[in-house]
Amino acid sequence: MRPLSRQLVAVLGRGVVPAAEPIATADDLGLVRGDGCFDAMRLLGGGTQAVAEHLDEHLERFAHSAATLELPFDEPGWRALIAEAANAWAPAPEAVLKLVLTRGTEAAPHRPSGFLTVTELNLAAMRRARAGIRVRLLARGYASDAFADAPWLLGGVKLLSYAVNSAAKRAAEASGDDDALFVSSDGYALEGPTSAVIVLRDGRLTTTPTGDTGILDSVTTRQVFARAAGVGVPTEHALIAATDLFSADGVWLASSIRGVCPVLTLDGRTLRRDPGWNAKLAGWGGF
Amino acid sequence: MRPLSRQLVAVLGRGVVPAAEPIATADDLGLVRGDGCFDAMRLLGGGTQAVAEHLDEHLERFAHSAATLELPFDEPGWRALIAEAANAWAPAPEAVLKLVLTRGTEAAPHRPSGFLTVTELNLAAMRRARAGIRVRLLARGYASDAFADAPWLLGGVKLLSYAVNSAAKRAAEASGDDDALFVSSDGYALEGPTSAVIVLRDGRLTTTPTGDTGILDSVTTRQVFARAAGVGVPTEHALIAATDLFSADGVWLASSIRGVCPVLTLDGRTLRRDPGWNAKLAGWGGF
Repeated sequence: MRPLSRQLVAVLGRGVVPAAEPIATADDLGLVRGDGCFDAMRLLGGGTQAVAEHLDEHLERFAHSAATLELPFDEPGWRALIAEAANAWAPAPEAVLKLVLTRGTEAAPHRPSGFLTVTELNLAAMRRARAGIRVRLLARGYASDAFADAPWLLGGVKLLSYAVNSAAKRAAEASGDDDALFVSSDGYALEGPTSAVIVLRDGRLTTTPTGDTGILDSVTTRQVFARAAGVGVPTEHALIAATDLFSADGVWLASSIRGVCPVLTLDGRTLRRDPGWNAKLAGWGGF
Repeated sequence: MRPLSRQLVAVLGRGVVPAAEPIATADDLGLVRGDGCFDAMRLLGGGTQAVAEHLDEHLERFAHSAATLELPFDEPGWRALIAEAANAWAPAPEAVLKLVLTRGTEAAPHRPSGFLTVTELNLAAMRRARAGIRVRLLARGYASDAFADAPWLLGGVKLLSYAVNSAAKRAAEASGDDDALFVSSDGYALEGPTSAVIVLRDGRLTTTPTGDTGILDSVTTRQVFARAAGVGVPTEHALIAATDLFSADGVWLASSIRGVCPVLTLDGRTLRRDPGWNAKLAGWGGF
């Protein structure tokens, strides 16, 4: 759990509000059922110079999450709220801009409620993670095709129902590691609780496919793969056997906030790594 | 979604508050990660005559959910808050008493926040459901032993991360049914989104075992089975092949709020039913 520093809160339809002011009632379906979605990106700088990184891609994914949940999505409203919040944010090197949409209240379930937070990042912790992380493989319980033909399982949605992700992170930390990597019941690496996996083997980058696996479409991985392809590095989306990670030429966990973090150890075993590739992937990801 | 009627809200450490007053901040981990648990029971009557049904059993299960999430649990505080809320509740024939515990805020993650709601039930809707419901089988994606040795999957916890349960209910309703019944990837009936399954065959009652299946321990089913056993009806916890439901002598979905509802049709096929057994199970469940 990162130590909290400065935070700004803004509510859709209202604008910036005091950060300590409660904003959700006891019958908000986001609060009592985790029924809603979110998205998160870095906010660099602040005021009129603030940059919400890959804003279009994150808004597109956020809208897709909302559509899967059958929630209306007010894109102009979100863009205006983000602009207002960014403008009100006193510059910080890096912050997280998190957008949250819930189904609304039990009393009015067809009026979703939206809000955002901007929270200053702990740069020291980010730099440590970007230098390398220790990762624990944890069973996710699902087969790699569990989400095929089962839209009610909400695959690919960045859900507010995130308790298992949080518990997996706690379990990894309890074993002395920094993060977890989920493995399907048929033995494939899926994703981390808040990140995607990228593997290097024989000069080729691979990540897990979205769709039947239920994993989230990673904005950072898309960015890394597009730039890698641009300089002739082959990339692919394919299932990755978890046991193959131990013999890979490099493994990274990629997220929009923490960056493209090389995996130093997996289940306590040291992985191969290459500072040159680390720098390339970080750069392609914008870190 | 039931139409909302009267609601009372009370916050742990504060007491009864106006129902329309927001109580959760934008960084509450219950709101942004579904990181917390809840429990729910009927509140019958109100004022000094109010009865919270099976309060001890629900508090015990709530405490177990909290312990699995590694959240401290203030049982005397909850009992006092429930008493205050029940006392302040103007009598209604039936209401839902819901208890909610979140991990607290990002700023203070070790100070969980708790609140409860009392909401009047729509009796007409309850009576319709107790007379019989139409149910759709939906894949849950997990094998029936997926939760063995994977405590981070939070099996048996009544989690705030409930979005898949809500989506399954919507999917069942979209197919013209009233509710869903989850099926494991290896073909066993697990539980409904908010209920347990009970099956009658050759005079014996069976329900799905908790533990490796990850399903919730049903207070109502425990009640029904204890009373059934008391009058010599054999009961067992065993995996139930979903295909066997079609030839059973009766199938019910049991919940603390809606009661023990006979399943009229499953995937559109009419099931066998017996008004005598319906009355027995409803009575044993306290409905």
